[in-house]
Amino acid sequence: MQLLKVDTLEQAREKLLQAVGDDWLTVCEVPLREARERVLAEDLYGIRDIPEFRRSMVDGYALQAKDTMGAGESIPVFLEVIEDVMIGTETTSVIRPGTCAYVPTGGMLPEGADSCVMVEYCEQFDASHIAVSQSVSPGRHAVEIGEDSKKGDLLFRRGQRLRPQEIGVLAAEGLTHVKVYAPLKIYVISTGDELTAPGEELKRGKIYDINTLALTALAEKHGFLVSGTRTVPDVYEELKEAITEARKISDLVVISGGSSKGKKDMTALLIDELSDPGVFTHGLALKPGKPTILGMDKKSHTLMVGLPGHPVAAMAVFEMLPVWLKRQQEGESEKLAVPAVLDGNVPGTPGRKMLLYVELKKNQEGYLASPVFGKSGLMSTMTRADGYAVVDLNQEGLKAGDQIWVQIF
Amino acid sequence: MQLLKVDTLEQAREKLLQAVGDDWLTVCEVPLREARERVLAEDLYGIRDIPEFRRSMVDGYALQAKDTMGAGESIPVFLEVIEDVMIGTETTSVIRPGTCAYVPTGGMLPEGADSCVMVEYCEQFDASHIAVSQSVSPGRHAVEIGEDSKKGDLLFRRGQRLRPQEIGVLAAEGLTHVKVYAPLKIYVISTGDELTAPGEELKRGKIYDINTLALTALAEKHGFLVSGTRTVPDVYEELKEAITEARKISDLVVISGGSSKGKKDMTALLIDELSDPGVFTHGLALKPGKPTILGMDKKSHTLMVGLPGHPVAAMAVFEMLPVWLKRQQEGESEKLAVPAVLDGNVPGTPGRKMLLYVELKKNQEGYLASPVFGKSGLMSTMTRADGYAVVDLNQEGLKAGDQIWVQIF
Repeated sequence: MQLLKVDTLEQAREKLLQAVGDDWLTVCEVPLREARERVLAEDLYGIRDIPEFRRSMVDGYALQAKDTMGAGESIPVFLEVIEDVMIGTETTSVIRPGTCAYVPTGGMLPEGADSCVMVEYCEQFDASHIAVSQSVSPGRHAVEIGEDSKKGDLLFRRGQRLRPQEIGVLAAEGLTHVKVYAPLKIYVISTGDELTAPGEELKRGKIYDINTLALTALAEKHGFLVSGTRTVPDVYEELKEAITEARKISDLVVISGGSSKGKKDMTALLIDELSDPGVFTHGLALKPGKPTILGMDKKSHTLMVGLPGHPVAAMAVFEMLPVWLKRQQEGESEKLAVPAVLDGNVPGTPGRKMLLYVELKKNQEGYLASPVFGKSGLMSTMTRADGYAVVDLNQEGLKAGDQIWVQIF
Repeated sequence: MQLLKVDTLEQAREKLLQAVGDDWLTVCEVPLREARERVLAEDLYGIRDIPEFRRSMVDGYALQAKDTMGAGESIPVFLEVIEDVMIGTETTSVIRPGTCAYVPTGGMLPEGADSCVMVEYCEQFDASHIAVSQSVSPGRHAVEIGEDSKKGDLLFRRGQRLRPQEIGVLAAEGLTHVKVYAPLKIYVISTGDELTAPGEELKRGKIYDINTLALTALAEKHGFLVSGTRTVPDVYEELKEAITEARKISDLVVISGGSSKGKKDMTALLIDELSDPGVFTHGLALKPGKPTILGMDKKSHTLMVGLPGHPVAAMAVFEMLPVWLKRQQEGESEKLAVPAVLDGNVPGTPGRKMLLYVELKKNQEGYLASPVFGKSGLMSTMTRADGYAVVDLNQEGLKAGDQIWVQIF
């Protein structure tokens, strides 16, 4: 293992892709009821025309548009009503010139009808006739067969995150289940003799464990399934046992703390010992996030990620590497960012990418982004921020007025 | 009940606020582990200084900055190492001029030390001395007591949605539980003789029920708890029984379908019959979304919302009314919108607000928004869209080049 062989973000990502290969993810079938926010694991094609029959979009009368030519409030057109179509039933009539049929919203249009007039423009004239006071063009208030989507159409690509509307389309097709990626199982380990579980008495010199809960929340936000969490002191054998147990039930083990160049630097040694062919990234050219360690255990197919101990840095690296990797593997498109104009200068940090935390203020044209400065370990930097921009800082840094793209938390 | 007394969106919202009053929501306490995405039900103040002791941000030596004045690679400064501070323990030494102490990242600074030098700039000189080759200013690499947040500080306001970083801050305070709003319980009823459950055989003239699954997904996306769903035919007594049962276990009953002016218009009559003092909104000046019905049953404290039958319209009204109401009640700030420039014209619909569905395309400056047109019942309008803008359309409509604010789905 080479110590602190610092990778750029791009190098680390490239190595991650190679390390996990193409069989890290598994596919499962879930009921539509539970498919929200899951990511489609296959291209999905329409299995029927939607709609399968011509439907009315309004409560009204199905007719032939040419019959209404010239009709208006003062010169109505009189048509014979030959059917009262019930919703959910097949029509029996055929509309010919001079005739029409009542059709409720969503009801089937009878053969021969090419459009509908809303009831608001129709008046009962006698027992079998109505007066129509509006002229419509063909197709008006009617939905054609397959107008929403056609049998055989590509509905959604692999990688599509299922929003409520996609669930709706799958329901419209009559599907009850859908193939999505099984959530990656992640185990969250926090190391440090100073860590105390929230709720316990805090001894002088110790702090409450932030990373276990914050990383668990962040992982779940991004669709990981947390297979377990554990807080361990800086004891080699204990940490080794924790990682060994964790990888039995996980696709990914993250270990935060213990990754800087200090006296108790065990995470790197352990990831190296427990992975084959060993640590492939030790150090990341990212601010915050330098003390990052990556290794892959080919045998158990478990990715091991050593994260910085500082919560803000740990969360930054988690978003930039494991979350990025998951989206890449699942084929999800890039997350939408918000354009904003910097309202202050940002000094340069040559050679390193930086996560710039910003507060957004809306104005008429868009957003102003105020950098939230603060020492990198401070949680308040992140709670005050609406999001972050990943910026490449050259010698000069960024200036007020520069545009950045902000990822919203 | 007045039929189709159309309200503007603002009027309907104002009536909703009055109808539910200030005791619609309830508060509950949840473990931090389950608090993600929940909304804080009280202002939260710091119960301790964070950090509670002065900490080092690096692996290095705690010292007095003035001792390093003039130090550099060619002219190091020599200091006596008087303590090796262990992480998580209290320090015992006092740093005086000419002395220093090793401190790991996160370790406690000894009294008298005002800054740290990273180990990278220190070299062991003899058994008890190091050579320091960097000059630092007071405060460097040190976090002061309360620098992240202070005891008594307002940490978060009521209405704050808990993101992973807020969970982290609550953990840092040592909290194990937090007071959040209990999720509103919603019951989703879909009506229509044409509705068939996905998976069942589809008879000619019938369609699969989209709204039950799509509205359930939408409700869960926005933090509602679905207390039940039911699909009922257009039979007065059946629908009445369904609503009556639903309101026993729900804060909100939504009924989609059956709300237009057709022959089977029962939802309005039923909401009127089952609410006291009856329907207060019947018709909404929103496109899509006109056939919307609102009533509140004071006795069971249940809001009843009749939604349009068209899935797209039902989802639009659900976002614009119940979701809006929930956010208002919980005190959550407005959801962040994305500025975009229209790349096409949008014809006017005087007197009505409109949900304009758009596809976003990124360019150098920001986003172009292409309106996704399509008949209002078509689900493909929504699946092709990245989000929507709520636009007030005057006689002229909107023109290519106009700026809109897009809510991302």
